[in-house]
Amino acid sequence: VIISLTTDFGLSDAFVGAMKGVILGINPHAQIVDVSHEIPPHDVEHAAFVVKSAAPFFPKGTIHVVVVDPGVGTERLVLAVRTGEAVFLAPNNGVLKYIFDGHPGAEVFNVTRSEYFRDRVSRTFHGRDIFAPVAAHLSRGLPPEKLGRPFADFERGSVARPVRSRGGIAGVIIAFDRFGNGVTNIPADWIEEPVLDGIVDPAPVRIENSVLDGIVDPGSVRVRVAERMFESLSRSYLDVAAGEPLVIAGSADSLEISVNRGSAREALGLKLGDAVEVMFH
Amino acid sequence: VIISLTTDFGLSDAFVGAMKGVILGINPHAQIVDVSHEIPPHDVEHAAFVVKSAAPFFPKGTIHVVVVDPGVGTERLVLAVRTGEAVFLAPNNGVLKYIFDGHPGAEVFNVTRSEYFRDRVSRTFHGRDIFAPVAAHLSRGLPPEKLGRPFADFERGSVARPVRSRGGIAGVIIAFDRFGNGVTNIPADWIEEPVLDGIVDPAPVRIENSVLDGIVDPGSVRVRVAERMFESLSRSYLDVAAGEPLVIAGSADSLEISVNRGSAREALGLKLGDAVEVMFH
Amino acid sequence: VIISLTTDFGLSDAFVGAMKGVILGINPHAQIVDVSHEIPPHDVEHAAFVVKSAAPFFPKGTIHVVVVDPGVGTERLVLAVRTGEAVFLAPNNGVLKYIFDGHPGAEVFNVTRSEYFRDRVSRTFHGRDIFAPVAAHLSRGLPPEKLGRPFADFERGSVARPVRSRGGIAGVIIAFDRFGNGVTNIPADWIEEPVLDGIVDPAPVRIENSVLDGIVDPGSVRVRVAERMFESLSRSYLDVAAGEPLVIAGSADSLEISVNRGSAREALGLKLGDAVEVMFH
Repeated sequence: VIISLTTDFGLSDAFVGAMKGVILGINPHAQIVDVSHEIPPHDVEHAAFVVKSAAPFFPKGTIHVVVVDPGVGTERLVLAVRTGEAVFLAPNNGVLKYIFDGHPGAEVFNVTRSEYFRDRVSRTFHGRDIFAPVAAHLSRGLPPEKLGRPFADFERGSVARPVRSRGGIAGVIIAFDRFGNGVTNIPADWIEEPVLDGIVDPAPVRIENSVLDGIVDPGSVRVRVAERMFESLSRSYLDVAAGEPLVIAGSADSLEISVNRGSAREALGLKLGDAVEVMFH
Repeated sequence: VIISLTTDFGLSDAFVGAMKGVILGINPHAQIVDVSHEIPPHDVEHAAFVVKSAAPFFPKGTIHVVVVDPGVGTERLVLAVRTGEAVFLAPNNGVLKYIFDGHPGAEVFNVTRSEYFRDRVSRTFHGRDIFAPVAAHLSRGLPPEKLGRPFADFERGSVARPVRSRGGIAGVIIAFDRFGNGVTNIPADWIEEPVLDGIVDPAPVRIENSVLDGIVDPGSVRVRVAERMFESLSRSYLDVAAGEPLVIAGSADSLEISVNRGSAREALGLKLGDAVEVMFH
Repeated sequence: VIISLTTDFGLSDAFVGAMKGVILGINPHAQIVDVSHEIPPHDVEHAAFVVKSAAPFFPKGTIHVVVVDPGVGTERLVLAVRTGEAVFLAPNNGVLKYIFDGHPGAEVFNVTRSEYFRDRVSRTFHGRDIFAPVAAHLSRGLPPEKLGRPFADFERGSVARPVRSRGGIAGVIIAFDRFGNGVTNIPADWIEEPVLDGIVDPAPVRIENSVLDGIVDPGSVRVRVAERMFESLSRSYLDVAAGEPLVIAGSADSLEISVNRGSAREALGLKLGDAVEVMFH
């Protein structure tokens, strides 16, 4: 069974190693996969986006452990969440907000059964003392309901929704990646059909199943971001010169604001929550 | 068998990958676990603390490889150290000082048998050419005594000890983590019993076995760090406002100086070796 | 089968986790080894050097996946390259230049068979949508020729060659590592034999098979780098005082320009391509 780890522990200390040691001490056959340990410290929002972006690509049955936990040591709860595909283990601070949003039927348990914790639980490092051993027990087949009671009053967090109108779509920037791309909440496939007018790729070798191939007329929409107007969508970063900004359907299947070989975040001064507006012609 | 790796090689070069390739070439079944490759370059002191903090949480029989080795290419020795729980492989530069301190009966061997090295040993990368292949052979069952002679005159390093008096405890800061927490050498359980006067947690859901639950009266001690006086201990980072400093029992079961959602190192201008003084009332 | 990963995706986002999830979904038994995810963004040149430096140390049959891919989303090709030892999967942008250079007989295939891709291929993340699933299929035994046609007109890149004359060797700096060492293309074993006059190590414990032990008279050559003259080679970083520069036979078996406990890149203001000149006496 795969245990994925997403934390803000960094890689310069012993935190991650200690967690892995604890897991392997309980289940030597656990297959540990690092998603990220470089979440900016305490950045629950970025962690939520990372979990949303990685989890769907893991095999069914994966246990996803998320420890970005500024409330460690308080009486904040630890949640175990079972969807049809996976189990998530995380503090009750909204870091699973996209998972709750995408799986309304998820079962949520309040993790209190300390027989699955380490014998001593520190005040500051529940990653090692609670999350790691509980994940290891889950990976050995322990069902989440053994960890504590079903729980309804968990922190759902707030998910910004795009709004579609006749003339366009209004959304916001919900995350930045290391390249400085601004990821929006505007689904790329909301910009479709109206103008499917047969763009033909001239290239001899062609990847057949690209998302949106031929379904968007790049000139059929304009996009406004932070007082800047883009007159069309781009199909690759190289559609514009180095250092120039563009809008593209990104890897999360939503629109992204990018700069070819640069950082849109820096070049355009973008911030989380900045409005992005798509206008159909 | 698990091989843990702690180095200052970083993750932007081929160093770590080459080490792993060499290990898996000799033992395809070795289970390699990264503790850290982001030790600051040449920072033997930080590496020593990381090894001390990670090793106890690994299963018995783990082989811990530590390569922070500014003396590479000189005639500095390579040590193999067997404790009751694990084998450590490291340069003879004090990076194992906490291991020696905690295991006075550890057996130490001077690693000289070059038949377990790579055929060619470079001047600058013994991680790949000596440590990796030797660790791989150990993971296949080679006993450390086959690597060279027992050796008594190794570098023990110097471990700062806290001093307890009737009125209090004197210690120092021995490490910082990525969050800027200052870890002291003052054991949290030295601040006990005198005032066990029944603090009751008001919270409805309670983790049962927290270290120090109820054993410290937060108001029973004062702590002085870098000219600043703390009038009590805290039980979680959130006991103080964001940006405010606190003293807490940390994950190494010692006192730590922290700032809620900030860096104590920066905010208080702390340095390694700074005095920390606990005063009982 | 081992799948090695070299990317510029960093570790703060979901990119690497998503790739690993896709691989393990197709081949749960794949053994994934990270070479580096901290290649500087879009730095094809550094990635080429990292692949060259790591790949030879992996077991035969390893599948090396390299995704530093500023042209993603354009019609740039994806290559599968089979040498006698390994299979490489990379964009057709020269990132495999050292592999082509070292394996003139390598078989190169143009990866076009989309049945081995993810069902949806995004415009910006072929690491997840093409490279990961193709690598997983290769690790299950799919031969590279099933991925597409043999291809001759690939991007070979340009490999800077050192030039040997009677009086010396002319080369350049081809890479920097995290320590700021400047790696040259001058093979250490080109500086040999002329003056093999028996240097004896005075140290009692000696590693027997160091490369170049006794074959270089450190005083037999001078080296000029960036207007600075080195009057001899060094045998370890500690041959000079802290902060002082030196020239040494590095881990790639080529000359490196270093600073003891410092960065040669910064201290000497070195740049990629800087001339390095070895002069025999």
